Amino acid sequence: MKHIKLEENINYDGSQIEPMWAFKNFGIKDSSIVSWIGPMGIQPDHLIDFEDQGLEIKGDNLVHFMIEHFDIQPADIRLCYHRQRLFVMIIKDVLHGMGIETIRSGDDLYFNTMNKKGKLSVSIATCSISSMKIHFALNLTERGTPDDVDTAGLMETGVNIKIQDVHDFRELACSKYITEVSSIEMDISKTRVF
Amino acid sequence: MKHIKLEENINYDGSQIEPMWAFKNFGIKDSSIVSWIGPMGIQPDHLIDFEDQGLEIKGDNLVHFMIEHFDIQPADIRLCYHRQRLFVMIIKDVLHGMGIETIRSGDDLYFNTMNKKGKLSVSIATCSISSMKIHFALNLTERGTPDDVDTAGLMETGVNIKIQDVHDFRELACSKYITEVSSIEMDISKTRVF
Amino acid sequence: MKHIKLEENINYDGSQIEPMWAFKNFGIKDSSIVSWIGPMGIQPDHLIDFEDQGLEIKGDNLVHFMIEHFDIQPADIRLCYHRQRLFVMIIKDVLHGMGIETIRSGDDLYFNTMNKKGKLSVSIATCSISSMKIHFALNLTERGTPDDVDTAGLMETGVNIKIQDVHDFRELACSKYITEVSSIEMDISKTRVF
Amino acid sequence: MKHIKLEENINYDGSQIEPMWAFKNFGIKDSSIVSWIGPMGIQPDHLIDFEDQGLEIKGDNLVHFMIEHFDIQPADIRLCYHRQRLFVMIIKDVLHGMGIETIRSGDDLYFNTMNKKGKLSVSIATCSISSMKIHFALNLTERGTPDDVDTAGLMETGVNIKIQDVHDFRELACSKYITEVSSIEMDISKTRVF
Amino acid sequence: MKHIKLEENINYDGSQIEPMWAFKNFGIKDSSIVSWIGPMGIQPDHLIDFEDQGLEIKGDNLVHFMIEHFDIQPADIRLCYHRQRLFVMIIKDVLHGMGIETIRSGDDLYFNTMNKKGKLSVSIATCSISSMKIHFALNLTERGTPDDVDTAGLMETGVNIKIQDVHDFRELACSKYITEVSSIEMDISKTRVF
Amino acid sequence: MKHIKLEENINYDGSQIEPMWAFKNFGIKDSSIVSWIGPMGIQPDHLIDFEDQGLEIKGDNLVHFMIEHFDIQPADIRLCYHRQRLFVMIIKDVLHGMGIETIRSGDDLYFNTMNKKGKLSVSIATCSISSMKIHFALNLTERGTPDDVDTAGLMETGVNIKIQDVHDFRELACSKYITEVSSIEMDISKTRVF
Repeated sequence: MKHIKLEENINYDGSQIEPMWAFKNFGIKDSSIVSWIGPMGIQPDHLIDFEDQGLEIKGDNLVHFMIEHFDIQPADIRLCYHRQRLFVMIIKDVLHGMGIETIRSGDDLYFNTMNKKGKLSVSIATCSISSMKIHFALNLTERGTPDDVDTAGLMETGVNIKIQDVHDFRELACSKYITEVSSIEMDISKTRVF
Repeated sequence: MKHIKLEENINYDGSQIEPMWAFKNFGIKDSSIVSWIGPMGIQPDHLIDFEDQGLEIKGDNLVHFMIEHFDIQPADIRLCYHRQRLFVMIIKDVLHGMGIETIRSGDDLYFNTMNKKGKLSVSIATCSISSMKIHFALNLTERGTPDDVDTAGLMETGVNIKIQDVHDFRELACSKYITEVSSIEMDISKTRVF
Repeated sequence: MKHIKLEENINYDGSQIEPMWAFKNFGIKDSSIVSWIGPMGIQPDHLIDFEDQGLEIKGDNLVHFMIEHFDIQPADIRLCYHRQRLFVMIIKDVLHGMGIETIRSGDDLYFNTMNKKGKLSVSIATCSISSMKIHFALNLTERGTPDDVDTAGLMETGVNIKIQDVHDFRELACSKYITEVSSIEMDISKTRVF
Repeated sequence: MKHIKLEENINYDGSQIEPMWAFKNFGIKDSSIVSWIGPMGIQPDHLIDFEDQGLEIKGDNLVHFMIEHFDIQPADIRLCYHRQRLFVMIIKDVLHGMGIETIRSGDDLYFNTMNKKGKLSVSIATCSISSMKIHFALNLTERGTPDDVDTAGLMETGVNIKIQDVHDFRELACSKYITEVSSIEMDISKTRVF
Repeated sequence: MKHIKLEENINYDGSQIEPMWAFKNFGIKDSSIVSWIGPMGIQPDHLIDFEDQGLEIKGDNLVHFMIEHFDIQPADIRLCYHRQRLFVMIIKDVLHGMGIETIRSGDDLYFNTMNKKGKLSVSIATCSISSMKIHFALNLTERGTPDDVDTAGLMETGVNIKIQDVHDFRELACSKYITEVSSIEMDISKTRVF
Repeated sequence: MKHIKLEENINYDGSQIEPMWAFKNFGIKDSSIVSWIGPMGIQPDHLIDFEDQGLEIKGDNLVHFMIEHFDIQPADIRLCYHRQRLFVMIIKDVLHGMGIETIRSGDDLYFNTMNKKGKLSVSIATCSISSMKIHFALNLTERGTPDDVDTAGLMETGVNIKIQDVHDFRELACSKYITEVSSIEMDISKTRVF
């Protein structure tokens, strides 16, 4: 499993959640995480969460993670949501290491201090028969986020976060996730079963 | 999925990791977490982690969690290890809420301050064809832990933890885990797939 | 798993077999049975059974059951058809308890007395990667059923069936099915495996 | 899938539930039902149902069905219990065709008339990683059944059942079950999925 | 599993890879291989291999094999690719028996002699949730194959291959594959597991 | 997946087929092939093939391959037998490249020339819930093989095979198998599914 760190500023319109996006666009075979920084404006026909129907999901500047797993065949959305939760918890941990405390509820992270409260992240998991996909994105700024939701931006939390910190954060979060998934495989091969 | 909070002081000798232990001893059908406080001294023939062969795994006083899942058929040790990781991360979070900072590496939690360093926990996951099991235990004290490992006890971390706090911790950790697993099921039923 | 008893008179046009219909229309998360009374006229592009291509599947008044299961991930059409058979057998049993004898062949129920012979029911099962769906419907009357098939209606069998009996039948059949599926889960957790 | 109709009078001691029994004793490869008539006296270490621990499970004369499926890999005890339920419902149906009304609760059949009430059957399902097994047996007589359970025997129900009828019943029940399982496979191959 | 040997000259345009094609066109239920001789010209929207996007996949005369498996539920593209490899290796073996040496790389067969080098075959595997499909085709002639690929035709290898040999080859390859898959099922039912 | 080439002369007594043998003896985590040269004398209680019960399975000098896969969870004996067949076909191919023609039937290789006929190999596949195992061994010599079976030894086929050739053969066969399994994973990630 590889982390591909894109330099380009891609707009997340929801099409990137489709299976094989990484292969079709970057020729990546095998499981992968692609990360980049860019805006978000999800087209209604790319909505994955039926609860979001009719809502605007958008923002001017987010750090995006697009994960695809091919190791489980057939793909299993239950396992995929377990991995999404692991990823969100790892993000929370890495933010904590940067001095940013967040609150997690399911797959959402919230910022909650006296000065600032708001939803930091959006996330969804889905699958086709052969591929499991996870999108997770963190607002860097509140600009362009929906008016009817209290949001927060990572670079506006009062903690001094520079763009290089965001790059380091991408690196560290992905590396920790890849290590985690791989450590589970190692644990399996030393475990007695009944 | 239910949490059964035992009052008795049971010795964890490793036999509790066997499938259906909760049913055979407490008549519990369905998935469950059983928690209790007690010593640990694992019998060699109850060892699950082949890496532990020849090692002593023991302690005088730990808080134990014994999880059994029947929802996945056939049982899947990979998913089981994902749930173990979720559980450990939830424990870490709850401890953080109690003012105790820990470091996680795979399924282990470590205490690491200037005054005190050491391994706080032991954990293993395993399965039979029909049942997935997770054992997780936290030292309350260092007493009785192996001499050749640096260990730490939850009640000796410098943070003021009373026995009632340990009970509250059991309650909260289990309730958060049960909610997490159930929230994943709810997420599945609102997700568009390809 | 819940039974949602609709009061409305919905036309079954085949779109209801689509995954997540219950969530999208009634906000139901989790596995469910939705039952209602209404006509049927399946649109060709909603046909699930390729053997039915070119046939008319219709009727003026039927009692409909729309089942969705999310508990098995990934969804398994083989298990889904096993559940369909269980459901049809439970229906047959409940009808027997009401004094109506039927003959079952696969997923079809037939009425067969000296006075009246004919197909009572239609049924199909299908799935997406994350959801298993079963539709089962019983003619209440022969009116509007295809001319080229011998059909029968539940309220025209010679046994005195009132509309309240149909409501009780809905209730009882769904409750027995939900109990059955749940009793299987309980049986798993008390079974020794090899 | 074949039905092997044994002529011998075999004692069911519980060892027959072990995977590959049919292959080891009769050289049968592939899925199979073996049926025979004989007594039952389950050895405690062959108990499969942990709820039966400490109970006597016995009888002097029963008709036994021992089913083994290899088609699902890895074996799935949930699917196996679904098939057990289908088998019991088919038995109930065949008995109904012979004029014997029974009541089903889970995997048990009961006889319940003014003159005679009692449990007619015993059943269990289990599996190894590669094989799914179902045992189902009907008392032909009450003789030798446990004292502390109300039992009934098929040949003592007041309906005139001769031993040839029992043979025909074996034949018919197995043939209907084999047809049912095979009809599900045929249904799969004509079903549109999402 | 049956082999259906079509006499017609069908153009392979890629639509035949769709699940249930054999049922919809020939009424075949159950797993099957359909073989025929005919041209190939894949429509871009029927492309399965994303690596082929933008390429022409065509030829004037090929022997085609279209395999569909329903035995694994849910379908598993990993197992499907294993079966594809088995099929290609069996083809290689049968060609070897006819005096034609080929080289295999993944799912491709190459002809490689002093006089003639070139790609002999095209192949792809895919699946829906309920069906696994494999297409494999061998050029009989180079005519009509893409200009930018070195290809070879079975009837132009220097070995004397008549059209009747091609028919015998179809028969033999399919019969060996069906026997192989079935021998695996038999092996399962005599294997001790842990 | 790694190939571990043992230098020691190990006796294959059947215990090596047990899950986790590679981890317990060589500390190998992850999927692996271990190969070595040595005698074989399978202990009756280590027999995996129930058809072999009562037979002697032995030889004085064989090249052994012991494969373990952890990538599929839960383990699937059907897939495992597919991989066994792939492995045997790859062995056949490599031998062909060395000038040794063999005939394959299921998982057995035979030598069959005018001068010499006989069974060259033994093989079995099995699994636990978390691990799939394949043993394959080729006689280097006929010495010590059972009297009641016609056997053949690789170094006695008339083709000039030196011990270094056997080492090269081990290397090449394992490397081709590892490449094959990995090429399937790559193919999955470029395949459109339905």
